[in-house]
Amino acid sequence: MLIVGERINTSRKVKGEPVIEQAVINRDEKFFADLARAQFEAGATYIDINAGTLTSGEPEALEWLTQVVQDAVDAPICFDTPNPMALESALAVYNTQRGRPLINSITAETLRWDATLPFVVQYKAKVIALAMDDTGIQQDPAKRLSVAQSLIEKLTDAGVPLDDIYVDPLTFPIGTGSDVGIAMLDIIDKLMTQYPGVHTIAGISNISHGMPARKLLNQAMTVLALGKGLAAAIIDPNDRYLMALIFASEALLGRDEYSMNYITKSREGAFEGL
Amino acid sequence: MLIVGERINTSRKVKGEPVIEQAVINRDEKFFADLARAQFEAGATYIDINAGTLTSGEPEALEWLTQVVQDAVDAPICFDTPNPMALESALAVYNTQRGRPLINSITAETLRWDATLPFVVQYKAKVIALAMDDTGIQQDPAKRLSVAQSLIEKLTDAGVPLDDIYVDPLTFPIGTGSDVGIAMLDIIDKLMTQYPGVHTIAGISNISHGMPARKLLNQAMTVLALGKGLAAAIIDPNDRYLMALIFASEALLGRDEYSMNYITKSREGAFEGL
Repeated sequence: MLIVGERINTSRKVKGEPVIEQAVINRDEKFFADLARAQFEAGATYIDINAGTLTSGEPEALEWLTQVVQDAVDAPICFDTPNPMALESALAVYNTQRGRPLINSITAETLRWDATLPFVVQYKAKVIALAMDDTGIQQDPAKRLSVAQSLIEKLTDAGVPLDDIYVDPLTFPIGTGSDVGIAMLDIIDKLMTQYPGVHTIAGISNISHGMPARKLLNQAMTVLALGKGLAAAIIDPNDRYLMALIFASEALLGRDEYSMNYITKSREGAFEGL
Repeated sequence: MLIVGERINTSRKVKGEPVIEQAVINRDEKFFADLARAQFEAGATYIDINAGTLTSGEPEALEWLTQVVQDAVDAPICFDTPNPMALESALAVYNTQRGRPLINSITAETLRWDATLPFVVQYKAKVIALAMDDTGIQQDPAKRLSVAQSLIEKLTDAGVPLDDIYVDPLTFPIGTGSDVGIAMLDIIDKLMTQYPGVHTIAGISNISHGMPARKLLNQAMTVLALGKGLAAAIIDPNDRYLMALIFASEALLGRDEYSMNYITKSREGAFEGL
């Protein structure tokens, strides 16, 4: 599974405090270098960077974060912003030797589509296609599926290879309705069946928003989505139990030949104390 | 999810020692009363009893275990034996006020079918239908599915309500092949689709036989199987993390309206320290 480390995000709080946002404002280089390294060493394939709460200073902040992260770890970056100016300034300084960038995200909203697509094409980026359009975020899963399908068509029409597309069905908090988990799993299942070769991705943590014992819900949802073929997840790779369950699930789902990766992780001590 | 507590089984070892078998031989009543209570308090719906390693003394042992367990807890018993004499002597002393018995298991093997069916009918028992026939245990999942289908037909023809049938697709250790997990999930999926109203059950722990960090594999497999509609699992209910992931999965799969059970368990402290 492709792991996008979610921890560098100014909207995340630590014990209710906007610690990450403050560290960006302070341009605390060591803080973010450490956060990037911790995630990379725990198995993150991409390091997500999001400075979305800094509405006015976002382009400068995202550019700065790009430089700090790419100097700290040899991992590609996931550029997490709806703001084309922030995307432009961050991609302009991105060291492509770290790997192809992942743009998070494009949608079928007219303005966002028009502003984001040129960057996907210019940088030959991989791209997260978020299932929303000009009608906004749709609760109805059939509508979200339909928006996801049209995004796949539009992207491939624009020359983006299917293999570079990661469709995000949108994760609703389970607290908003007992059926939102099944609906999300069902969208993933249908997309994987209808578009062989496309990938699916999800920002799993949102499922547990407002609930107690969030980690358990995030862990169970990750395993359930893996069971439907989810290819990538935007998660906290420093949740050791979550990572262990992902390794176990991959062995069980035939994604880890002879369970070699699982056995190796076990030997390396990755499951100790769990 | 219906939880069948698996811990009273003479083939289970503790740190390599046949502790459970020895306690049966010693007729250690307190040992088994405690084991039954521990599982019941942790959320077991049924308490499984298995004295299969005591080949000669199994009927007396199973009868004794029945009395000890039903005196200790107010839970129905899952009678786990291929031996009709053991089944007969245990069912004869069973206190049906504890609930309808669950017979574990009937198969399509001619001798076992003929010897077991009368008990299912006589006691109006719920029954686990294990997907094997006179050709033995089939690795080929298509054959196991076909045996499972014929068992469902035979049982309903014999007057057993669909709602009383728990089909067990057989759990192979993942160490025997990278595809056995997917095959098992696929059988569950197909049975649930083809026979609406039937239940599926699995002895999950066998998936991790011979592997390191067995609990992680058992936990991930339980969640994956729940995602396919598994109704019941023969597991260790004293694995708190496993139980927590089951509660989380049920909330996510819409089996727990408004996540009320999950939230209640959290308030009661069931997830503390996890």
